[in-house]
Amino acid sequence: MINLGLQNACDEAIYQLGLDMEDLEEMEEDAGLGNGGLGRLAGTVPRSMFLSVRVCWAAVGSPEQEVEEADDWLRHGNPWEKARPEYMLPVHFYGRVEESKEGSRWVDTQVVLAMPYDTPIPGYMNNTVNTMRLWSARAPNDFNLKDFNVGDYIQAVLDRNLAENISRVLYPNDNFFEGKELRLKQEYFVVAATLQDIIRRFKISKKGSTGPESFDSFPEKVAIQLNDTHPAMAIPELMRVFVDVEKLDWDTAWAITKRTFAYTNHTVLPEALERWPVGLLETLLPRHLQIIYRINQGHLDGIGALFPGDLDRIRRMSLIEEDGGKRVNMAHLCIVGSHAVNGVAEIHSNIIKNDVFRDFSELEPDKFQNKTNGITPRRWLLLCNPGLAELIAEAIGEGYVKDLSQLQKLNELVNDDAFIRDVSNVKQDNKVKFSQYLEKEYKVNINLSSMFDVHVKRIHEYKRQLLNCLHIITMYNRTSSSFPRGSLSPIQTTALYTECTKTPS
Amino acid sequence: MINLGLQNACDEAIYQLGLDMEDLEEMEEDAGLGNGGLGRLAGTVPRSMFLSVRVCWAAVGSPEQEVEEADDWLRHGNPWEKARPEYMLPVHFYGRVEESKEGSRWVDTQVVLAMPYDTPIPGYMNNTVNTMRLWSARAPNDFNLKDFNVGDYIQAVLDRNLAENISRVLYPNDNFFEGKELRLKQEYFVVAATLQDIIRRFKISKKGSTGPESFDSFPEKVAIQLNDTHPAMAIPELMRVFVDVEKLDWDTAWAITKRTFAYTNHTVLPEALERWPVGLLETLLPRHLQIIYRINQGHLDGIGALFPGDLDRIRRMSLIEEDGGKRVNMAHLCIVGSHAVNGVAEIHSNIIKNDVFRDFSELEPDKFQNKTNGITPRRWLLLCNPGLAELIAEAIGEGYVKDLSQLQKLNELVNDDAFIRDVSNVKQDNKVKFSQYLEKEYKVNINLSSMFDVHVKRIHEYKRQLLNCLHIITMYNRTSSSFPRGSLSPIQTTALYTECTKTPS
Repeated sequence: MINLGLQNACDEAIYQLGLDMEDLEEMEEDAGLGNGGLGRLAGTVPRSMFLSVRVCWAAVGSPEQEVEEADDWLRHGNPWEKARPEYMLPVHFYGRVEESKEGSRWVDTQVVLAMPYDTPIPGYMNNTVNTMRLWSARAPNDFNLKDFNVGDYIQAVLDRNLAENISRVLYPNDNFFEGKELRLKQEYFVVAATLQDIIRRFKISKKGSTGPESFDSFPEKVAIQLNDTHPAMAIPELMRVFVDVEKLDWDTAWAITKRTFAYTNHTVLPEALERWPVGLLETLLPRHLQIIYRINQGHLDGIGALFPGDLDRIRRMSLIEEDGGKRVNMAHLCIVGSHAVNGVAEIHSNIIKNDVFRDFSELEPDKFQNKTNGITPRRWLLLCNPGLAELIAEAIGEGYVKDLSQLQKLNELVNDDAFIRDVSNVKQDNKVKFSQYLEKEYKVNINLSSMFDVHVKRIHEYKRQLLNCLHIITMYNRTSSSFPRGSLSPIQTTALYTECTKTPS
Repeated sequence: MINLGLQNACDEAIYQLGLDMEDLEEMEEDAGLGNGGLGRLAGTVPRSMFLSVRVCWAAVGSPEQEVEEADDWLRHGNPWEKARPEYMLPVHFYGRVEESKEGSRWVDTQVVLAMPYDTPIPGYMNNTVNTMRLWSARAPNDFNLKDFNVGDYIQAVLDRNLAENISRVLYPNDNFFEGKELRLKQEYFVVAATLQDIIRRFKISKKGSTGPESFDSFPEKVAIQLNDTHPAMAIPELMRVFVDVEKLDWDTAWAITKRTFAYTNHTVLPEALERWPVGLLETLLPRHLQIIYRINQGHLDGIGALFPGDLDRIRRMSLIEEDGGKRVNMAHLCIVGSHAVNGVAEIHSNIIKNDVFRDFSELEPDKFQNKTNGITPRRWLLLCNPGLAELIAEAIGEGYVKDLSQLQKLNELVNDDAFIRDVSNVKQDNKVKFSQYLEKEYKVNINLSSMFDVHVKRIHEYKRQLLNCLHIITMYNRTSSSFPRGSLSPIQTTALYTECTKTPS
């Protein structure tokens, strides 16, 4: 509504109906988009949402009931989306690779259908509406029924649901790689459906021109941003389509693929890095494993030529880790298959470049960049803090909503007593609203004249909640020490820790 | 469209859009309503459809592919229905019975939610639209998740689907009782949801008046026709609600219950009769088993008083069969719990009365009736045979569409050569259309000038396909014998056997 400039009109219309827009917004269930920066990025950049499964379930902690409750955000249907059965696509799993003089063919696969659901995403006052396309798994009509006459028809039909488990639940892991087959199926499912959809649309745009050379302009029309390594299978999948289906030669396909992909790294925690066992890939996606091996061969040959005899470097940079069971390092695959790699904060990007992926930045230094993971001012200022947004607009106009650098105009007001007082009033109003919410939802009373220090995140050592505690104690000590020993500090701080359960959609 | 008098207008509108209504009708998937008289009755009498699960799957034989294919009639959604989450209701399973001085309480149950889907069913030109309400099973949000922290969250969420299996598949059995727990769950699920819904609406109609006596008028407002024994659990369920929840005394509840229910018997084949093991009921519906035992006690006491010492009669008429494992005879339960019992053809009703349920008709002779299971002339004449329908309307007017007895007016035309010729032309047109369909769908060519003898049913000994074969041979012999030996009969008969896959919805 904000983006369409309809908010006031809608508020008014709903009010005329005897309803309250805020109540309606409370009733609507958020989409299950995860909890952190990854989901925030996905929710902010609609195009990257193309690479999302439409999962039904996410975990939500409910403080009152003290039991975990499933988050069935699709229970009552979702009025903002439209199923598009006419664009349903097959996704293959398992099977084997058949070699012939025409090349490799992936055969005897199990098929699951990907049903697209489209949600329109209007831009902010720009007459543009993008489409967010999520995919839901459907068993094909003949799934598991071919042999049912020898067995149990009812069980065969019920087992169809196993195929549809692919889009049933979002893994709630917070920066932790679990390595379950269902998770790998989800990742490949959304990648395979999305790439087919992208290629279909690319071919429509090239109407008339066919043959392998018609893909030369692919990277000019298609940019795929890998939002962490979860969609990394898109790299071997695009290679498979180019080489096995579209009959491009390997080197051409690889050049187009690298120009198409870019990779955003989200974490350097070792336990969070995706490292899929080769055995699992061999069973679930045998052709893709072959392709990964061939990508790795070319990659290692290049390193060997540049650093002759540096076997340890080759071992470190291989897509395949050999210690313990054989595993594919998906971050390495993403770096090798992309033309750009970025971290999401200055310090993070430096760690990537100089530490975690140093070998890779030595090989291709220009590939590594920083893109600080910001927030959209429409959601986090206009929507979340309407009082402050209005105050700023009164002071410097509404231009800042589209051009945040205009906030620098506020520098002229740092000594403007009236403006400072207005900002304080907005803050105080928000504190009142927040404390009322806390009292209603959590039965917690807080001191309205204290400082609020709010840390909203799931509890995790890397989120440094403990460090924040130490910071609060330090601040307390500092304010205390500026007053005589034994007297009470006039400044109180209310520190709040709560779990952020979901990224708001 | 026929019922709303919109057919011509719709045909015309669709034609203006460059489409063909018949093509559109071909594309629409039929609802999975089963195959025979039971589904035909359910499809014809919308009120009885209240007692239906909204199953997703039915079996369809597809002659070309020679593999059985599942019939996912809800794959693309169903534009004619509307989900009504605001009327979602809980249905209980398992648990145990707690006795106290306030009476019996069924506790510690597992809950599955019943989501209603409403389809409007317009009457024929009568300004009346009934609602067909089907139920779909949903796992509640906390299903199976209470203990997930000790186990596997993902598996706990995936297991929720087991609860939703209840409305996943229609048992394809043709007059054969299989006795599977899932089937009993389906039967009770739809019964429990429907009765709650009926009682909710009854209470609204009695607004203001409360207390047990307010149910005295229940049978005047509510009539429940048991379409075969599949919804028989409605009898103990209504008793449970009356006695345990609404606190009616047993005898009052039983009198109201009997006046509410009537029972249509559909088969006397022994292998088709539902006889649920007592052990299964004890686990799945423990309170209902208690209630069935108490109904049986009163029933047998009555017989004992009328036929003192006739222990064999008591054994024959008991709701509980004792030979082999203990089982509940659901037909006996339906007869005892209803004020009317009917067969669906004269001969069938006589067999019920004089043979299969003779003991029961001796006890309550007025209870037994016949209701010949007919066809609606709108579907089977107006819709299926528009040529003949139009010809009849030209001859005797359109009154017969609502009053089939007016077809007797056609007796005056039996010697009208022009009318006879027109009927022959309609027949011939239909034969041409049918043979074109056969050629297109089954690659079968038939002689258009032969007699057609078409028998459309699933293959089953009780459907007497063999008897029909003998009849055709007899007819052939008769026509042959009226011509000189060795000469060919001028009359050929084309006999067709095909499986009727579904009741058209």
